[in-house]
Amino acid sequence: MKTMRLFLCLLLALLLNACAGSQLRGTGDLGLVIERASGHVTLVNTSARQPYARIEGLGDLSHASAVYSRDGRYAFIFGRDGGLTKIDLLEAKIVKRVIQSGNAIGGSISQDGRIVVAQNYAPGGIKAFDAETLELLSEVPAEYAPGKFSKVVGLADVPGNKFAYALFEGGEIWVTDFSNPRQPTTQRYPAGKQPYDGLVTPDGRYFLAGLFGEDGIAMLDLWQPEKGARKILENYGRGEEKLPVFKMPHLRGWSVAQGKAYLPAIGRHEVLVVDVATWKEVGRIPVRGQPVFVMARPDGRQVWVNFAFPDNGKMDVIDTLAGKVVHAFEPGKGILHMEFAPRGENVWLSARDDNKVLIYNTMNFSQQGEIAADSPSGIFFTTRAARIGF
Amino acid sequence: MKTMRLFLCLLLALLLNACAGSQLRGTGDLGLVIERASGHVTLVNTSARQPYARIEGLGDLSHASAVYSRDGRYAFIFGRDGGLTKIDLLEAKIVKRVIQSGNAIGGSISQDGRIVVAQNYAPGGIKAFDAETLELLSEVPAEYAPGKFSKVVGLADVPGNKFAYALFEGGEIWVTDFSNPRQPTTQRYPAGKQPYDGLVTPDGRYFLAGLFGEDGIAMLDLWQPEKGARKILENYGRGEEKLPVFKMPHLRGWSVAQGKAYLPAIGRHEVLVVDVATWKEVGRIPVRGQPVFVMARPDGRQVWVNFAFPDNGKMDVIDTLAGKVVHAFEPGKGILHMEFAPRGENVWLSARDDNKVLIYNTMNFSQQGEIAADSPSGIFFTTRAARIGF
Repeated sequence: MKTMRLFLCLLLALLLNACAGSQLRGTGDLGLVIERASGHVTLVNTSARQPYARIEGLGDLSHASAVYSRDGRYAFIFGRDGGLTKIDLLEAKIVKRVIQSGNAIGGSISQDGRIVVAQNYAPGGIKAFDAETLELLSEVPAEYAPGKFSKVVGLADVPGNKFAYALFEGGEIWVTDFSNPRQPTTQRYPAGKQPYDGLVTPDGRYFLAGLFGEDGIAMLDLWQPEKGARKILENYGRGEEKLPVFKMPHLRGWSVAQGKAYLPAIGRHEVLVVDVATWKEVGRIPVRGQPVFVMARPDGRQVWVNFAFPDNGKMDVIDTLAGKVVHAFEPGKGILHMEFAPRGENVWLSARDDNKVLIYNTMNFSQQGEIAADSPSGIFFTTRAARIGF
Repeated sequence: MKTMRLFLCLLLALLLNACAGSQLRGTGDLGLVIERASGHVTLVNTSARQPYARIEGLGDLSHASAVYSRDGRYAFIFGRDGGLTKIDLLEAKIVKRVIQSGNAIGGSISQDGRIVVAQNYAPGGIKAFDAETLELLSEVPAEYAPGKFSKVVGLADVPGNKFAYALFEGGEIWVTDFSNPRQPTTQRYPAGKQPYDGLVTPDGRYFLAGLFGEDGIAMLDLWQPEKGARKILENYGRGEEKLPVFKMPHLRGWSVAQGKAYLPAIGRHEVLVVDVATWKEVGRIPVRGQPVFVMARPDGRQVWVNFAFPDNGKMDVIDTLAGKVVHAFEPGKGILHMEFAPRGENVWLSARDDNKVLIYNTMNFSQQGEIAADSPSGIFFTTRAARIGF
């Protein structure tokens, strides 16, 4: 009798535990904040504008980024130390973690959601993993000449389970097709001197690589790759004067709104405006520092800009209709990243040196909340799962 | 002792039941198919490309449409009979159902996800409901002149918890601001004769209303509404010849890709191409019937077209780079609607008269699957939750 009761009680406890961990909820309004200094991520809810869990043990998260599974349940986090960690946003735990290289710089997920690809500095190249198990499927070493390997930058997924990326030392753009994940095929396109970052336009059509070794941007039309990469914005870069550059801007911060791209100028206190039909510069907007991220609200009406040191406590907001800054403020110390709510009603900012994430209403610029976090950097919401070019 | 055991067993049973119903899963890859004839919806998973549940009791679902909660867990389904039904995609059940009017035609959800708005033919006007409880918050009767009420068409959410819509008899575009959900405020703009449908461009900037009583399209720039609605595409419509029109096209099917809008011609076997910078027609593409939905794949490379009777078994696929139809096929009988996977790798088609939903790969046009459904019509995936203008 006593045994039976004990058994039942244990079973009950197990079931309660199982149930407690399994609160049903949608994943469309979830996200995560990278806490770079301590290897944590804080999980957040964008409807409540609150954190709901914290996970530790993710290694070196400086410059870490994240992509999401098709269902929005799992995040894949790429650490600087080559760690690739799969976390479950519903159970708030690490599902699997592998060290896939010695020195890595982000990754991406295929259009069909089955393949996670990491880009590596050392050993230079990309590696493809099964999104379910993190089993290594294949790798593409960035061997641009016999025995010479390049750092890989600017990796982005493009339609057809392909990935585009650039080789810093190799000076090339590569497009790798993972239709057969264990036997990828790669096309190579000469790009220019020292590509340092890349992006894909929101429609997945153009891959653009910023050049460190010369002025200009290399652009490959992925709809007509046989035409090869061509140079656009020949004056984009540090120019003749070789201005001091405190931090190379993030190309991933480029935004396209109303047929125009808004780009961080390099070394100048300006945002450049470019017509995407012609890829010619059509304007410059003065801002209060060297821009790092220049990001459009999802509707394209506003472009938010943060800055390199020593102006990294400032934010400028450009109204794209007025063509100028309409709001300038100092939300906190060390603003590293921003992420808009999917439909743009608010924006989340990482204030690293205040150990806070700050949430602002984008209509009236009022603060709507804040979340404690340990040196927060990247902020990533699950709606990225549905977008091309991340 | 026995009481205790009974109690424990009952508790156990309850817990097991609770756990069984609560399979944890992300909602990013879920969706639903309207089964118009029988008042069912079939719930589907776009990763498995399979149905996983079916819900009955939704009333008259002819011309029904759906929007989603911010978290992707709940769908709000607007029936033709004025029924508004909230369903839970995780528990696969109806949460709440109200009959909110006698004759309704769709609805929308606010940018912040808190307000669901239905548009009604009779009594003409819109009604706002609390997304949590479906409690009626307020209503805006479409009284365009004293004692005269209009049917409402083309309702779409726009940034700032506002909604834009058109009045068929009233000949006006109205924009209602629900910042205070119980005391909405409305602005009115003369639009033209008998607007029959409307849409908002993907960035939420322009509201366009097709006119039944005259040629042309009324356009309101929501960034500068004080300028009023103006007429564009003056030749868009049935024209001088008053061609026979088998079915007015769905404006909601309009697509913007690469700076061009692709529109169904009215009464003609053509898709019109319009430059969105100037709103001038720049081309026409011949197709095999009177187009109903003209929808771009998310990357804008392809535009898929279905047709009015008697050509409603055909589909034409336009390649936007080539500027012509590159694939034409007859997937099934009575193709009513289509929905793309969020990143465009496949498209789901409703074949009403075959009682099937058909799934095609958009890269190579191969069939990837099919799902049985009773007279399927609208197909809606949860990723709509993150988009403006639905």
